[in-house]
This record gives sequence, C-alpha cells and structure tokens, in this order.
Amino acid sequence: MTELYDAIFRPASVAIVGASSDPRKTTGRPLDFLNRSGWTGRIYPVNPTREAILGHTSYPSVSALPEVPDHVFILAPADAAVVAAAECAELGVKVVTILADGFLETDPAGARRIEALHAVAAGSATRILGPSSLGVANLADGLLLTANAAFAEPEIPSGSVFVAAQSGSVIGALLSRGISMGIGFHSLVSSGAELDLSLGEICLASVDDPGIASYALFLENLHAADDLRRFARAAAAAGKPVVAYKLGRSEAGAQLSVSHTGALAGDDAVATALLRDLGIARVTNFEALLESQELAATVPLPARANPHPRVAVVSTTGGGGAMMVDCLAMAGAVPTAPSAETITRLAEHGIEAGDGVLIDLTLAGAKYEVMKAALDVVCSAPEFDAVVAVPGSSARFHPELAVKPIADSAGSTATPLAAFIVPSAPQALQLLRRAGVAAFGTPEAGAEALVAVFNRSTPRAGDVPALAPDSPTEVLDEAASYELLSSVGLPHAPFATVEVTTVDGGLDLPVATPAAVKVLSAQIAHRSDVGGVVLGVKDGDGLTLAVKEIASAVGTHAPEVRVDRVLVQEMVSGLGEALIGYRHDADAGPIVLLAAGGVLAELHRDRSVRTAPVDLETARDMVAEVVSFRALAGYRGAPRGDVDALARAVVAMSRLGETGSIDGDPVIEAEANPVMVLAEGHGVVAVDALVRRAVPANREEQR
Amino acid sequence: MTELYDAIFRPASVAIVGASSDPRKTTGRPLDFLNRSGWTGRIYPVNPTREAILGHTSYPSVSALPEVPDHVFILAPADAAVVAAAECAELGVKVVTILADGFLETDPAGARRIEALHAVAAGSATRILGPSSLGVANLADGLLLTANAAFAEPEIPSGSVFVAAQSGSVIGALLSRGISMGIGFHSLVSSGAELDLSLGEICLASVDDPGIASYALFLENLHAADDLRRFARAAAAAGKPVVAYKLGRSEAGAQLSVSHTGALAGDDAVATALLRDLGIARVTNFEALLESQELAATVPLPARANPHPRVAVVSTTGGGGAMMVDCLAMAGAVPTAPSAETITRLAEHGIEAGDGVLIDLTLAGAKYEVMKAALDVVCSAPEFDAVVAVPGSSARFHPELAVKPIADSAGSTATPLAAFIVPSAPQALQLLRRAGVAAFGTPEAGAEALVAVFNRSTPRAGDVPALAPDSPTEVLDEAASYELLSSVGLPHAPFATVEVTTVDGGLDLPVATPAAVKVLSAQIAHRSDVGGVVLGVKDGDGLTLAVKEIASAVGTHAPEVRVDRVLVQEMVSGLGEALIGYRHDADAGPIVLLAAGGVLAELHRDRSVRTAPVDLETARDMVAEVVSFRALAGYRGAPRGDVDALARAVVAMSRLGETGSIDGDPVIEAEANPVMVLAEGHGVVAVDALVRRAVPANREEQR
Repeated sequence: MTELYDAIFRPASVAIVGASSDPRKTTGRPLDFLNRSGWTGRIYPVNPTREAILGHTSYPSVSALPEVPDHVFILAPADAAVVAAAECAELGVKVVTILADGFLETDPAGARRIEALHAVAAGSATRILGPSSLGVANLADGLLLTANAAFAEPEIPSGSVFVAAQSGSVIGALLSRGISMGIGFHSLVSSGAELDLSLGEICLASVDDPGIASYALFLENLHAADDLRRFARAAAAAGKPVVAYKLGRSEAGAQLSVSHTGALAGDDAVATALLRDLGIARVTNFEALLESQELAATVPLPARANPHPRVAVVSTTGGGGAMMVDCLAMAGAVPTAPSAETITRLAEHGIEAGDGVLIDLTLAGAKYEVMKAALDVVCSAPEFDAVVAVPGSSARFHPELAVKPIADSAGSTATPLAAFIVPSAPQALQLLRRAGVAAFGTPEAGAEALVAVFNRSTPRAGDVPALAPDSPTEVLDEAASYELLSSVGLPHAPFATVEVTTVDGGLDLPVATPAAVKVLSAQIAHRSDVGGVVLGVKDGDGLTLAVKEIASAVGTHAPEVRVDRVLVQEMVSGLGEALIGYRHDADAGPIVLLAAGGVLAELHRDRSVRTAPVDLETARDMVAEVVSFRALAGYRGAPRGDVDALARAVVAMSRLGETGSIDGDPVIEAEANPVMVLAEGHGVVAVDALVRRAVPANREEQR
Repeated sequence: MTELYDAIFRPASVAIVGASSDPRKTTGRPLDFLNRSGWTGRIYPVNPTREAILGHTSYPSVSALPEVPDHVFILAPADAAVVAAAECAELGVKVVTILADGFLETDPAGARRIEALHAVAAGSATRILGPSSLGVANLADGLLLTANAAFAEPEIPSGSVFVAAQSGSVIGALLSRGISMGIGFHSLVSSGAELDLSLGEICLASVDDPGIASYALFLENLHAADDLRRFARAAAAAGKPVVAYKLGRSEAGAQLSVSHTGALAGDDAVATALLRDLGIARVTNFEALLESQELAATVPLPARANPHPRVAVVSTTGGGGAMMVDCLAMAGAVPTAPSAETITRLAEHGIEAGDGVLIDLTLAGAKYEVMKAALDVVCSAPEFDAVVAVPGSSARFHPELAVKPIADSAGSTATPLAAFIVPSAPQALQLLRRAGVAAFGTPEAGAEALVAVFNRSTPRAGDVPALAPDSPTEVLDEAASYELLSSVGLPHAPFATVEVTTVDGGLDLPVATPAAVKVLSAQIAHRSDVGGVVLGVKDGDGLTLAVKEIASAVGTHAPEVRVDRVLVQEMVSGLGEALIGYRHDADAGPIVLLAAGGVLAELHRDRSVRTAPVDLETARDMVAEVVSFRALAGYRGAPRGDVDALARAVVAMSRLGETGSIDGDPVIEAEANPVMVLAEGHGVVAVDALVRRAVPANREEQR
C-alpha cells in the first residue's frame, strides 16, 4: 500500500485544477498554503484563464503539464470535476482528490456524476479521494493540499497523530484544537463521500509510516467496514492505537448522517460493538478524541475488553479528586482504594492515604517529592489497572510542584498513567503531553477516555465472509430453524411434527404435557394472529382437535397458506426469558445479540451486542451487561437461573456464520425468541426460532 | 441579610489570625493577595511572634487590635482556631472564617472542637464560615481574603458571576477557568464544612447585590437544603439564574462526599429533583458550570420544567453542526427542522435550509450577512424554543464572518441563543461572552447546559414543614394506611376487616371473589414469610379456613405478634403495576416517587422523583418519564392502561404532607405498592399500602 500512501501524502508533484490567485477564496487556498509551508515538491496550478498564479506557471489542462503529477486536487465544480478526473485517469495520475459537492444519490444529476466517476475509477489505476473531500495535509513534509481555511495557521507544529475524518470541516477543527492542546499531527485527511477510497483504506495505507504513532478518526458511518477492519488489524499488529468519535448516537444524528453522505446509518449499538471488537476506543467527548491519544498508546490492546478497569485517583485537591472519582465511576470504571500494603508504603513516605478510594495528598502538600513518591508507590501496586493523577491549583503557575513528578513518572511505570488538571493550566497540560502522559482538561473526558481504551479488544484474525448484497433469501420454518440451531449447539424444547393431512383421530401426544401446537409455515410471520397456535394441549384427542382448529382457522385467515404440518412442542416455562439473535450486518458483518425477553426489556433496550463469533467468556460478559438478567442471579432471594447455559447458547448462536450452514448457504439472520432460562443446572431451551438464509442465484432460479 | 453579606464580602476591616510573612505559604497568602489587589479596607495581621508582616503592623491577639474587625480569617490550626474564634465572638466580630481542617465528627478530637465551635456560635452574634473554608474573594472590591494559591493570578478581571463551593480548592479551579474563558466573577466563597453558615445562606445574603447577575454552585451535599431553598426562591424572584455542579452521582462519589465533609449523601435522584424544582440548572460537564451562565440568564425560569426543548441548529460546518445535533438529541432536546414558512424566509436570503434538522449554511458561505440573516429568521420562528449557532473554522481567525453576527443577534431576540465554536477559538468565545451569548467549547457541554436550563422550574412558594429530627414514628397497619391514603384521594381495592377472635364459621365473604386474606398488623414487615397471607379465597367457608390458617401460622412463626384482625380484600389484577411513594426527605423535604412495579423495573431504576406536592401536569410528566409505563400506552397493540388515573394518584400521594395527617401527626413516609393500573377509564387501585408517621413526644410517652 506504500504506493497509494506516497501518492496521497508524499507525492513528488501535485496539480491543482481550478486554482485561483485569491488566498481568501477556497480555490486560492491550497496554492497559498503550499507556498507558505515551503513544501519542496513540484506544484502545477491548472487554470486556462491565467498565465501564472501566486508565483507558479498556470497550465490550461492537466494534459498540458510538463509531467504527469502524482496527485491532482480538483477544485472545480461537480461536472467539470468529473471531466477533469477522467482526463487525469487517462494520463495515469495516481490519486485525484475532488472537493466538489453535488454527488448525492438522491439527486438525478448527482447520481449521473457518481456513475461517471465510478466508470473513471473502474477503467483506470487512478484512485479517487472524495468527492466532498477538503483534501489532505502531511505536516511532517509541509504538504498542505487542502482547501480547509483552518490551515491558514501561522505555525503548524507536526507530530505523530494521524487524523482521518469523513467530515471535511472537522479536520480544521481538530487541527486548531491540537495546536491549542500541544498535540501535534503527522497528517490529516478528509475522506468525504468515499466514492472510491475509504477512510479505512487510506489509514491502512499509512500504517507502516514510522512517523505515525496513533490515529484519531472522526466517523459519520461505517459503510466501508471491511477497509476499517483491515486497517484496525494492521494498526493493532503495529501497536498503533486508534481512537474514534462517531456521529449518529441519537436518531436525529443518525438521520443527519444519512442526508449528509448518502450512506445508511447503522444501529449505533452495532457501531459501538464493531469499534470495540476492532480494538478502536470510542469516545463521545469531542476533546477526548485528541486528549486520549497518549493514554491509548500506554494501554496495551487487551485480548478481552475490560469495561470496568480498577483505577487509583491520586490528588492534591479534595474537590478535584472527588470529581474525578465520581466521573470514573459514572463511566464504568471502579475507583479502587489502596491495599493495606500500599497504604503502608505510602505512609513510609509520610503520606496518609485515608481509607477511601481517593488518595488525597492535600495534607502532605503539593510538593514534587510527595506526588512523585505517591505515584511511584501507586503505579507499582498490583491492585490498580490504571492511575489518574489530579493536580490542583498549583498546576497553573507552579507545574514543577505536582505536575512535573507526573511527567517524570511516565517512562518508569508499566501501569497506564493519566492526569486531569483541575485549574485552567495549558502549560501544565502541554508539559505532560510532551512527556507522553495523557492529560485531560475535564474530568468527564478523562474518565470516558480511560474506560474507552480499556474497553476494546484485539481485533480477531481472518476475514469476514462477504455476502452478495441484495441476494435472495429464504426463511426456514420453525422445525428447520431448530434443526439448524441445534446443529450449532443451541437447544430447544422437545418437539415433533405432525402431517395435517393424515390426522383423523387416534393421535398420541408425541411430547410431554402440556403441549403447544403451532402451524408450521415459513410464510406466516404472526401465527397467533391467524389462529395458528393452540396452547395447553394435554393428550392425543386434544392434539387432534388442535390440528383441526388450526387448519380451519388458518384456512379462514390466511387462505393463501397451505397448511401441511403442525409442530407439537412441550410447553416449558423458565425463570426468565431471553432473546438470542444473529445477523449478518451490512456494515459490521456477523453480530450476535442477547436481550432480555418481554416488553419491558424491549422498552429499556436492555441488550448486549458483539461481533460474532464470541467465546464463552465474552458471552458471560454479555449476560452480565443485560440488566434484567440480574434477576436470574439470586436477586432478592429469587431462585437462580442457568445463566451459564445462556452464555453457552449465545456462543452457539454466534458461530452460526462459521458452522451453521445447510447445503452451504450462509445464514443472514437468526433469532431464538423466547429462550427459556431454566433453574441453575437445567439449561436453556428455545421455544420459538426463525432462520433466514441466503439462496444462491441458481437455486433461486430452480424454484 | 445585608449586614451578613457586608461583613463577609464588604468588611471595612479584616484581621488575619496566624498570618505569616512568606507569600509562598498558606498563612502568608491572604495578606500578600490583599496587598497586591490594593484592597482599600483596614488590614490587621495577628501574630504574637512578629512586629510587622508584609508591611502591616502585627498584633499579638484580636483583642489587642485598635478596633473590632468586621471579618476575621483564622489561619491557625484547629485547636488554636477554636480559641481565636471564641475570642472574636466575645469581642463582637461579625464573621469568623476558619481555614483549619480537623473538625470531623468521626474523630473524638474533631467532635470536641465541633461542640466548642457550636457553643461559640450559639452564645454570640458572631457567624462562622467553615471550618475547612479557603475563604472569600470579592473581586469587584479587590477583597482577596483567601488562602487559595490560585488567587496569585497576575490579573483577575471581575464580572457578575457569584461562585459558591462547598469544596475550597474548586474556587481556585473555577477562577482560573473563568479567566481563560473570559468569564468574570463578582465574588467567590468556599463554605467548607458549614458548621454555621451554609452555602445557601451565604448566597441568600448576596442576592440583592446589583453587581451579581448569576450563580455557579459547586455542591458536595444538600444538607442545608432549607437555606438553599430560601436562596433559590430569592434568586428566582430577583431573576438571577443559578447553575450547579453536584458531586455524588455515583456511589463511589457519594461515599467520598461522606468522608470528605461528614454530611450524609442523599440519593442522587432526589438531589436532581430538588435542584430542578428549585429552579437550579444541574450540569455534569465541569466546563458547563461556567459556560452556561449567560444561557441561564436568557431562558426565563419556566413554571414547568421542560426536559425536551425544541432546538434549531444553524451551522457553517456540516460535521460540527451534526455533532451538535447528535449531542442535543442525546441530552434530551428535540433538534427541530424549520417549518415551511421558515424555509421560505431563509430562501429569501439565499439560504437553502434543506429538509433536515440541521440548517447548514455551508453552501451559502461563512459570511456575516448569511449567518445574521439566518439567525434573524430562525430566532423569530415560533417552532423553536432555542437556537444554537455553530460556526466552523472561520471562527478562529475571522470571527467577523460567522461569530460577530451571533454576538450582534444577542440583544435583538427573545429566543434563547447559544453557540458552539467547532475549532479552538478562544477569542471568538470571549467575543460572544462579552456580548452576553453563552458560548461553548464542546458540543456535549453546550447540549447538556441547554437542556438543563430548560429543565428547571420556578421554585414553589411557602416553607417546607420542618420535622423534628429523630422524632419517634409509628407504622400504620394496612387498613389504617388505606384510610389515610383514601382521605387524600388515593384509591384502594375494596376491603373489610374481620375480628379473628369471633371467627367460628358462618362467615360471609365481605368482598367480591376471589379475595386475599392478610394478617393485619403493623408489626409484621413481610407477611408472606410468616404465613400471614392466603390468596384466592372464594367464599365464606374459605374465609373461615384462611383466618384459622393465618392465626395458626403467625402464632408459630411470629409468636410475639398478637393477631386480632385480618384484612379481606378483593384481588384485582391490572394491566400493569406501579409503586407510588412519599417521603419526607431529610434534605429535600417532601418528595413523591413513581416507579414501575416488579423486579425488572427495580433493576432498571425505572422511576421519577419530584419534590411534593405536584400538580396533575407534573404527575403526567412523571408517568411519561417512567419507561416501563410506555407498555400501558398502547405499545405494540396492547390494551391501554389508565395512566391518567395513575397521575391523579401521584398527585394525591404527593399532597400527603399538606392534607394527609391523622390527629395532626405528620406523615414521614408512605408507600402504595403495588398499585394496579386498570384499563383506560377504570382507574387504579392500591392493593397494599404502608404509612409511617411521626408521633409527638407526649403521645409517645402515653404508650
């Protein structure tokens, strides 16, 4: 991927189509920026109406240039941009970046332009960045090939953070915030509408650059999740952490993402699961996206996400330390009191730790030796997963007292260390960041970031099986669904099927009493609504009666359905009900979902989502995440349910994508609902199930 | 209260007991600060070991001063501080502020000191601020009577925000943050352990100062809620908004507050309810405490809290605007699309608003005229409760383009207007703040603050009835509880009582069948556990049998209880179950609680809390807040429950403090649980209830 990376970020030559000579205008900016940054590559403005622009000879077209440039930035409006892109492709330009909007699928002209650009990309080796891309900047080299006004900064220090945003204007906001924070960037890129190059592919191309230490992503959607997945794996392998801010948490925000990019917004819980399982820390505090970079670098990507890290809070200020503790606990961390041994070791340095979760140095004083000794002791104590230092007012004018010792502790500890500075103290924050310590300006951003970097896991190896989009699917009936789910190890209540046509009395009940009798047809979604279910059947006569009732009722209410068979199933009641689902998500690939059964759980959106497959320990984490299942854990003296069997059933369901095919046809979605959770040791059983699988085109034609 | 206010914040003379001459030491700071600020009052250091300190004559004791100072700041350690305070009281000093820690109730020496200080306060007109107070600052006058190192700022601009914090170090953090933000303070006070003066009383004393426009409170607890209540009413009457950050959202944070101040931490949901009902906007983003001051000032305190304001987002940047929309929706606001009329009016100014909730000015351009015209139109459109402007990168270097028009719109609109600046742009933020526009540096703080200022209501008039602490109480039995709850209008299922001693067969069932028979005794908390309940009784013989069974079982399992009567009640099943509770909270006063019934709702903490009494509309808001009750609103075709009767029952319960006494004895707590919610139009009925009321000491003695 180095060639692509070089063409985008390290071109030997660039052309700017539609360049103008007014630096205040969008079209004048890139050339002005390049002039000011002193970029050393070859620069070609393309504008047929000028002879020279801002000190550079102007050319009438890309074809007229003395060489084929590596990277062409097209500032022209949409239709002209398509023409210019085609010209570039013909010439063999490696990368074309398109600024113009006007490529919305919902607009007929936009759809035509999209088609034309797709043809350009397909018919050549030229890669397209955008449309709606504000361009790229490689601060390490001084390449400012962007129309974003924010790059008019008088001085832009470079650093090691790589910023990629689907929204163009956000790279400008992050640039300025980074400068204020003292966080330097290696490169920034706006991937825009991602007609060809996706954010994930661009990041992947960059991952071997030794100048890049970590990634900050601003995402609007996950529609090129495969690229993101490959990038996440490569970044994990290279030990380069990735933090993401993603829009679309709310329905209003998700809808906006749709109108903004034309991409379908997924369920946000699925996005959270995908990012976590790709080892990407997701934050919702905007400042945390940059502030957490150093912290992410010091927390090794764990094999299993840990949403509840044990944290020590060491503070020179009671109120500020208490804020941090409160925010950490709200974010899911476990503020943890020092052990007796740690208390003793602190006391040896004259520090009275007290008996609470806050290690308050107020009495010992805001002195270098005190903070340094406290951090030395706490960072080497085994009871903490991470340490947060909270210096108070002295940080503003006397960072040598309580801030410098934090910076000095950075290199010498294996325990991740972060800081929240209670007063406004930009210099203290920068001092820490220069030393490689994640420093936070607010307790809520610090708490969220800390939990986010622990709550991610090493991305799994192997590709996600691709599904042809819009391939035909078929729904299996309940019996076939049980059969398939059984084959992966998901149990169901005993059942038998009965041919309706042969029923003429004299039946035996083939399962234990009482039984449910249900019409067996994949064509009926809501069987109760058409009289397709009879409950509480106690014997053979009852079964005969039930079969006739069902045949008659379905014949009346759904005459288009042929009733060949019914399913007779033992009625099982459990201590609780669960829903276990599997879905091949268009963005995230296979996901598994566990939810509590019933309307209330649905109203509370009480559920847990992971990318599939999951192992037993992860499935247990999922059970623990569903609040309603605490009722099955001996809550208030109630009998315990078999939550471990529930976790095993989740594992089984989650492996449907690997092992659950019939005739090799992949499962698109499956749901066991309800799954009855029996008493501890007695397992779980599904009492309804549905599987939808893809049907290959040739099979489809035979039907 | 002006005398108290003057003594604290505008004294003619101050003495500093325990002053030293080293400005780097805590004891040297106040005098150094006063010297540097050029405060014009009379200053007396008190230190028997010196003749002069930092240019002022030093005195051996407060008694030796040439006058009785208005305000004495005691920097001496705990025991010496008690002695000095007593001396001040004897002399008639108006206010004594004590810096020392060492007044924890849990420590014997601390308890003795507390007692001694209480005696000082009780035996004189001297008021005590602290202990554990870092002092006060009146920036308008240059009075820096504080030991907080943060006041070593080279320049401290004054403003109109009054800061009061129970945690001392936080005033320093807020001071520095205010300076960085361009938000100026009138005064700051650290109320510390509040042995005498509470934060609420101090704020109340300040409310008539015309130099104070708004309040920022940092709270650790609400233990002096009566003072806070009086202050909140006065502030509301004066049109001065109050915003609060309160610790103790998490259990870990609440415990910390306990160890930190010795005050009992209340349930955080009660704190939220109290603050909202006092008209105080509660924020959890630390920056929002200051950033929201101007916004709170422009949103009139509404009669009814509105947790879902309709908000217009006007942005010059798609990504930044989308962030704001997403954060607003997550905070509970309703990002709202412009009406057809508004769209037409925007088009007249060349602005294409699109059809979504984001009014994106990107195409029209980041120009003064565009932003100004957009705000003029949107701020006068009736479909919005508030408007948030979101300028993009131009804000950093060219605030005249998209920021100035926001500032210029401030005075001319009745619709509350706020701004989120996407890039780092301190000058743009300050420009807006100077113009009186609330400007936010992060979308999450802006969204939270906006919802918080709408989600508060005018504090009710009238005092909260005081209850003697630790007064004896008695529990009413179920029948007496029904009687009391009936008297305020809370219905119950029909019941009758039966004397156990007279039962000898031949009984008639006094209620409709089936009936529950329950032992009637206030002494038994869990009647089922002792065999005190028989369900499904169908006739008189069944009743006879049930009575005998109960008498026998209770006699075996709870022989200390005399079983005189049983309660026979019609068994009623509803479409849903609720819990309605009333409690005279030690901090918040009377509160009413509505929760969904059942274990799952309990696990989800699915409930709504208000200070009592509430009107019907508020009770309906409470029903709407409990997620589980959506199942009663026709969810998924289920029959509708009588949620309006449920709201009326909440109103009834909430008035227990006013009207629900028997023999004039106030109710301490009451609970109807479960309350069965019947089908729409059929009401609700309690099928169990419990009331606890205070017993006057004389009645108690008679028993």
